[in-house]
Amino acid sequence: MDEAEQPIPRRINFRKRFYHPFQRRTRVGSVPGKLRSSKNAVPTHVERIVFDQTTLQVDDSVETSSLSDVTTGTQWINVVGLADHKTIEAIGECFEIHPLLLEDIIHTHQRPKVDTIKGRVVVILRMTDQQIPLHLEQVSLVLSGNTLISFQERPGDSFEPVRKRIRQSLGRVRDQPADYLMYCLIDALLDAYFPLLEQYGQMLEKLEDEVTDSPGPQEQTQIRDVKRELAYLRKTAYGHRETLQRLIQESEGRFSEDTRLFLRDCLDHASHLLDVTESFREVVTDLRDLYFTSLSQRTNDVMRLLTLISTIFIPMSFVAGVYGMNFDSSRSRWNMPETRWEWGYPMALMLMIGMATGMLWVFYRRGWLRR
Amino acid sequence: MDEAEQPIPRRINFRKRFYHPFQRRTRVGSVPGKLRSSKNAVPTHVERIVFDQTTLQVDDSVETSSLSDVTTGTQWINVVGLADHKTIEAIGECFEIHPLLLEDIIHTHQRPKVDTIKGRVVVILRMTDQQIPLHLEQVSLVLSGNTLISFQERPGDSFEPVRKRIRQSLGRVRDQPADYLMYCLIDALLDAYFPLLEQYGQMLEKLEDEVTDSPGPQEQTQIRDVKRELAYLRKTAYGHRETLQRLIQESEGRFSEDTRLFLRDCLDHASHLLDVTESFREVVTDLRDLYFTSLSQRTNDVMRLLTLISTIFIPMSFVAGVYGMNFDSSRSRWNMPETRWEWGYPMALMLMIGMATGMLWVFYRRGWLRR
Amino acid sequence: MDEAEQPIPRRINFRKRFYHPFQRRTRVGSVPGKLRSSKNAVPTHVERIVFDQTTLQVDDSVETSSLSDVTTGTQWINVVGLADHKTIEAIGECFEIHPLLLEDIIHTHQRPKVDTIKGRVVVILRMTDQQIPLHLEQVSLVLSGNTLISFQERPGDSFEPVRKRIRQSLGRVRDQPADYLMYCLIDALLDAYFPLLEQYGQMLEKLEDEVTDSPGPQEQTQIRDVKRELAYLRKTAYGHRETLQRLIQESEGRFSEDTRLFLRDCLDHASHLLDVTESFREVVTDLRDLYFTSLSQRTNDVMRLLTLISTIFIPMSFVAGVYGMNFDSSRSRWNMPETRWEWGYPMALMLMIGMATGMLWVFYRRGWLRR
Amino acid sequence: MDEAEQPIPRRINFRKRFYHPFQRRTRVGSVPGKLRSSKNAVPTHVERIVFDQTTLQVDDSVETSSLSDVTTGTQWINVVGLADHKTIEAIGECFEIHPLLLEDIIHTHQRPKVDTIKGRVVVILRMTDQQIPLHLEQVSLVLSGNTLISFQERPGDSFEPVRKRIRQSLGRVRDQPADYLMYCLIDALLDAYFPLLEQYGQMLEKLEDEVTDSPGPQEQTQIRDVKRELAYLRKTAYGHRETLQRLIQESEGRFSEDTRLFLRDCLDHASHLLDVTESFREVVTDLRDLYFTSLSQRTNDVMRLLTLISTIFIPMSFVAGVYGMNFDSSRSRWNMPETRWEWGYPMALMLMIGMATGMLWVFYRRGWLRR
Amino acid sequence: MDEAEQPIPRRINFRKRFYHPFQRRTRVGSVPGKLRSSKNAVPTHVERIVFDQTTLQVDDSVETSSLSDVTTGTQWINVVGLADHKTIEAIGECFEIHPLLLEDIIHTHQRPKVDTIKGRVVVILRMTDQQIPLHLEQVSLVLSGNTLISFQERPGDSFEPVRKRIRQSLGRVRDQPADYLMYCLIDALLDAYFPLLEQYGQMLEKLEDEVTDSPGPQEQTQIRDVKRELAYLRKTAYGHRETLQRLIQESEGRFSEDTRLFLRDCLDHASHLLDVTESFREVVTDLRDLYFTSLSQRTNDVMRLLTLISTIFIPMSFVAGVYGMNFDSSRSRWNMPETRWEWGYPMALMLMIGMATGMLWVFYRRGWLRR
Repeated sequence: MDEAEQPIPRRINFRKRFYHPFQRRTRVGSVPGKLRSSKNAVPTHVERIVFDQTTLQVDDSVETSSLSDVTTGTQWINVVGLADHKTIEAIGECFEIHPLLLEDIIHTHQRPKVDTIKGRVVVILRMTDQQIPLHLEQVSLVLSGNTLISFQERPGDSFEPVRKRIRQSLGRVRDQPADYLMYCLIDALLDAYFPLLEQYGQMLEKLEDEVTDSPGPQEQTQIRDVKRELAYLRKTAYGHRETLQRLIQESEGRFSEDTRLFLRDCLDHASHLLDVTESFREVVTDLRDLYFTSLSQRTNDVMRLLTLISTIFIPMSFVAGVYGMNFDSSRSRWNMPETRWEWGYPMALMLMIGMATGMLWVFYRRGWLRR
Repeated sequence: MDEAEQPIPRRINFRKRFYHPFQRRTRVGSVPGKLRSSKNAVPTHVERIVFDQTTLQVDDSVETSSLSDVTTGTQWINVVGLADHKTIEAIGECFEIHPLLLEDIIHTHQRPKVDTIKGRVVVILRMTDQQIPLHLEQVSLVLSGNTLISFQERPGDSFEPVRKRIRQSLGRVRDQPADYLMYCLIDALLDAYFPLLEQYGQMLEKLEDEVTDSPGPQEQTQIRDVKRELAYLRKTAYGHRETLQRLIQESEGRFSEDTRLFLRDCLDHASHLLDVTESFREVVTDLRDLYFTSLSQRTNDVMRLLTLISTIFIPMSFVAGVYGMNFDSSRSRWNMPETRWEWGYPMALMLMIGMATGMLWVFYRRGWLRR
Repeated sequence: MDEAEQPIPRRINFRKRFYHPFQRRTRVGSVPGKLRSSKNAVPTHVERIVFDQTTLQVDDSVETSSLSDVTTGTQWINVVGLADHKTIEAIGECFEIHPLLLEDIIHTHQRPKVDTIKGRVVVILRMTDQQIPLHLEQVSLVLSGNTLISFQERPGDSFEPVRKRIRQSLGRVRDQPADYLMYCLIDALLDAYFPLLEQYGQMLEKLEDEVTDSPGPQEQTQIRDVKRELAYLRKTAYGHRETLQRLIQESEGRFSEDTRLFLRDCLDHASHLLDVTESFREVVTDLRDLYFTSLSQRTNDVMRLLTLISTIFIPMSFVAGVYGMNFDSSRSRWNMPETRWEWGYPMALMLMIGMATGMLWVFYRRGWLRR
Repeated sequence: MDEAEQPIPRRINFRKRFYHPFQRRTRVGSVPGKLRSSKNAVPTHVERIVFDQTTLQVDDSVETSSLSDVTTGTQWINVVGLADHKTIEAIGECFEIHPLLLEDIIHTHQRPKVDTIKGRVVVILRMTDQQIPLHLEQVSLVLSGNTLISFQERPGDSFEPVRKRIRQSLGRVRDQPADYLMYCLIDALLDAYFPLLEQYGQMLEKLEDEVTDSPGPQEQTQIRDVKRELAYLRKTAYGHRETLQRLIQESEGRFSEDTRLFLRDCLDHASHLLDVTESFREVVTDLRDLYFTSLSQRTNDVMRLLTLISTIFIPMSFVAGVYGMNFDSSRSRWNMPETRWEWGYPMALMLMIGMATGMLWVFYRRGWLRR
Repeated sequence: MDEAEQPIPRRINFRKRFYHPFQRRTRVGSVPGKLRSSKNAVPTHVERIVFDQTTLQVDDSVETSSLSDVTTGTQWINVVGLADHKTIEAIGECFEIHPLLLEDIIHTHQRPKVDTIKGRVVVILRMTDQQIPLHLEQVSLVLSGNTLISFQERPGDSFEPVRKRIRQSLGRVRDQPADYLMYCLIDALLDAYFPLLEQYGQMLEKLEDEVTDSPGPQEQTQIRDVKRELAYLRKTAYGHRETLQRLIQESEGRFSEDTRLFLRDCLDHASHLLDVTESFREVVTDLRDLYFTSLSQRTNDVMRLLTLISTIFIPMSFVAGVYGMNFDSSRSRWNMPETRWEWGYPMALMLMIGMATGMLWVFYRRGWLRR
């Protein structure tokens, strides 16, 4: 029960976000570059991991005042929740992030993009929580020297595999500078989309069967909902691809050649995600067509039954009507003499059965009896 | 009552503007570069605000003759109403605006654009009054040295937040040159579109419910109207984005680097507006499809009832017809002996009920009784 | 009567030109560069206006032999009718126009284009006679030194306002070289499209009302016709925009900077025309959809009435049929005892009325009675 | 009869080529650059014309061994039929044509293209035989010094006008080098498409009338066939335009400036052909829509008649049924006293007529009787 | 039976791959650049062919340890099956292939692409097994000096013709360096698509006939399946064309000029494949339209029969009903005197036949009896 009920609020939620994209936006006419977060922002919380090849220091909760750039190793500052402006502004000042970039980070309706202002590379992407209906959270990654700062809207993210690799010193992440860490986070974020698409695949497969078997208004609503979510997903996937393309261009000379090779691999993943999303969108369009045809097919079936019954019984009823007429057969031998024949009634029944058989024959020949 | 009636003239108004886009255009074959305003232009009225970091001087109504460029601080001349050519020409001469630019400013059917002729940057945009149906007013911004001149068709604009910021010295507007003021006005103008789209979102949400529940010609008309308005809005949003892109390109070296950063932020807003408008346009297309399907669904429902009633009663009526025949049962024992049986009538009724039950069974099996 | 009949031949004419675009083309395999005009070309007639700031000389009909370039002032030679090759070849030789350009001028199925061969700028455009159905005449403008030569297919053109300005010395046309005159003619030609689009707007508005009220095959034909005309208009408008863009590019260094500014203004007009044409094309598509839906709506209405009548009367007829059976009630007390009851008939009528009321109730509940 | 039957095999032929585009291709995995012609290639035959301003030498059939480049004048070698590899390879060797180009020439499924390998310009185009259904033959033109070699699949071509001009020394073809001859052949080839499109125009015009009057499956098939042919034609026309554009680019410095001017004229023709083809394709789409609507219209008409007849007679039959009931009027004065009234029967008839008139009135008001 | 059953698992298989594109992907969050093959990968097996003009050495199964580059001649290492990482990593190390490239080679969901990292050119394409439903296997070709390494997912490939040409020393493959071998493999791989498309052509031809004759849900499913397969094929064909274009660009200076000419020929083939695939996709869209129309046509036919029968018999039944009324003709001479006429019954029958004939006449005139 709990399982069946949970999706409903999520879907309504998606619909609300869809039709009211600006509800939670800052007040119209606010001073540009001044921070004002959305009303349902989560309180801010700052985590920090500093590591190099040999050492590793994890702080689950740090004060803003204690933040500063590191001279050796790589620092990853993860900011969760965007409600507390003071903290975010302090981080912005500490790492010299331009106020406009901070504004973009806090206003969580940005399209995926990359921006480089005064040596600070900011990448804004969208992170999935791998559930349907779609909910995509904004994630901003800021690269400033050896420090990578990530901002996310809510606790819970796709970065756990990266944290594990850092903790367990798997792969090359511990040996590499902050730009490689940025790549790792982007890669992890994109990887999390694959199970989501897998879910959409399952859903569409099920929907296709349902539409073929018993198309109804519920299926129509579902098709419309999925169509919108995939449209949103497609826009995001497209944005991710574009962002990665620009990041690869802009990072020339700034990132190590190796990291850029890895980013190109990331770009392939992003393109692949886009491909699959577009295939799925085509599927949804096909499902809508299928829904239409199923409806027509049904009307056709209903019509066929009506026609079958009507055309068989209407002529028979006519015969019955004829012999129900009250012409006085005693007055004239031309007035319904059949009613007085000995075999009149069986003959009339035979006539009716003959007509019905004739009509059935016509139907059979036209192939309307088969299925 | 008043509330319900007001939208109607607005919509008719939109339709008129849509089908007669050139009604108010200057006479065909007029001398190029000569001003001739549209017949329903509003009388011209000139306001001026001169400010720098410390001083602020507001004139609600100034004479054209007293206008001149300022040497220190920033001057904002706001021209409301485009009926009075003399005044506009005088301003044009005073600030050396090319006659063709003045013509563009007065002929209020321009597409959004930016033009630089002889050092004067002119940006032409469209301003919303945040009401549905759509009415977009042309606004022209001319930058000439430290002076920014804005032209608008009618009193009432989206610039109040900027005026407030100047008066109350909020943000950086008082410290910055006229190009920053230009940015502020553009930003305020674009910001005013967000509540408008919010309204369209609400409207579409309501329309979707109506079309699902009871599709009728009224909904169809509404869909068509909204479709057109969104098409017009999309064209405008697209124009704004293009204009901002060109402005950022052309302003290189002319505007301060900081203002150009802010303009880039503006460009993001414009892109976002375009995105949402396009989502909404897709929604309208979906609504139209939904309308079609609802119609088909209804025909189907009507057909189903007809078929249900017909196929149940037609065979029963046939049986009744048979026993209504007048074969003379006294003449032969083959002529309708059932009419003389003791249980003939109940048997006939049973036969009819049996037939009806059989048909209902067929219907039930085919799933046509459900829903 | 005369008014109603005139449009018909015009529309048939448009259809003919549409389906037979090459009927009047030169014979296949003709020698390239050799002139051969279409069979329904009009006899050639040459006019000339020579003017400078102070003097003005108008010749309504000049001999080809007397033509030559002018040393001072501007010369406008207007060639009306393209039947007489000799004359046109003589003009071509006199002003050194390449034979291929002359061929383009005479073969009146060219797309709008600009061509510069050996210092002669040729602009080919299409001129409207402001009537529906569409008829667009080819106009070619050749600029050769201080002389502008215009070629048109038939008497009657959009250039009257320019002639008036020259005669009355309005605006700047008398002070400017021939390139400004070229701009004036292009501007006048484009201006003449605005009333045409205005007419299409009126027509579409009327058509929309008709399709909503009573869609029929006549409306369908009209939609198809208008669609084609707008497609042709769109192609022309697109061609005009492209031609002006290229003219502005190619005229760099050749035309005065001022004329080029004016041409850019012209380009804005051309873009605007294209915009409106495209809006109208979308309207036509919407009208077609509306036509489809109206048809479906009608089928639905017809079905609903049939179902209403059938489902009300079929059960009632069945009851009547039952009591029309001839079971012999004298034989058994089970055989239709109702027929012998005192209130049997009123009871049967009540039963029928009850059934009808029940069906009406079902209809009312499903909302099929409303509207 | 002969005329009506001939198109059928052609159309089947087109369908076969459409669905089996590779039937006649070389065996999979053949050695690249090795010639292997299609199975239904025609035996090879070589013609030669050598000419300059004064002399002209025509050989209807030449041996390959006698071929060589000419030092003065222009040589046109026309190769008809591609079955004989030896001959074609010998020509290839003689004029140093790269084996890959020879392969392209022989494999007659190439898209229009231009290729320049080692100084040999090869233009591959498609030639029409001006009959419907479409059959386009591949023509390859190779320019090698003063020699132009043309390859065609079958006897019969569009080049007759050029041959006539050479023989009769019309126009400039005799004075010009081989590149001008190439232009002449391309021009003649393109010119031959105009009558073909003229035929399609006529066909579509006829089809439009037929679909409006009596849409049937035959019309549907025809629409589908024409749609495919026009799609193929469009692709070819597009290829021709692209090929000419590239030829003009690549021929810079290689061809005389004059020939290039003529080629630009050719490009205009190709663009025009493309335009008309695309218009016709839109017509076909419209015809399909028209076919759909005609079908719906018909269903609607049928429904309307059914409804008219049913709703008029069903209530009348009900009245007849009521008075056909067997309530015993002798038992009670409430049992069908009407049957014993003196004017009972006329009254019943009046009632029926009244009901029918009422229904007709409803129909008339809803406009369902008109048309 | 066997033949009919085999396609089903293949089709289900295609559907599964379509809806679950990431099922077999590596675990989310894996270390980048580390190999982990899909679960149903085939065990790895390595073949080697070393040849030059005179010598030829074929090893059907070689150890990885014995692999090294060759100094003379060309070496082709063919790796079949991607399950064994150790082997593939060893090959990667031996020929200095970047780990990311190895990852691409093993993860068999790559789009066609070409990549050059540190002098190693990697081309990833998709190979067909020429059966329907579509199954495309990933093939990776790595060029490293004189060695070409090919990786394929499963035994069985399209390269047999190339092996034969090497063995039998046909064509130029033995004389040329490894880049020519790469071209040969690409060419063979593309050539294998032609028979596949030939099969699709046959299938569509058959499907078109079936949809015209007897459209049913089975045909609809088939259309949807083929549509998806062609969409996938189109994406692949598009990828191949793009890959070849980039390969030609990137190979400048790296490959011999001759090989690049052959690659351009390959590009033509790839374009041709894309063309045909797109034609077929259009056919599928047409088939869907045809299916819709056939359904409508059928509903129309059914309606027509119903209307025919109903409109003929309903009026006749009404007449019979009238004369079945029980008005007491003995009471009044106005009460159904016809029943007592001598010719009353034949007259009534005549009336009925007259009505039926009238209705048939109406039908005949409207053309509803024909077909």
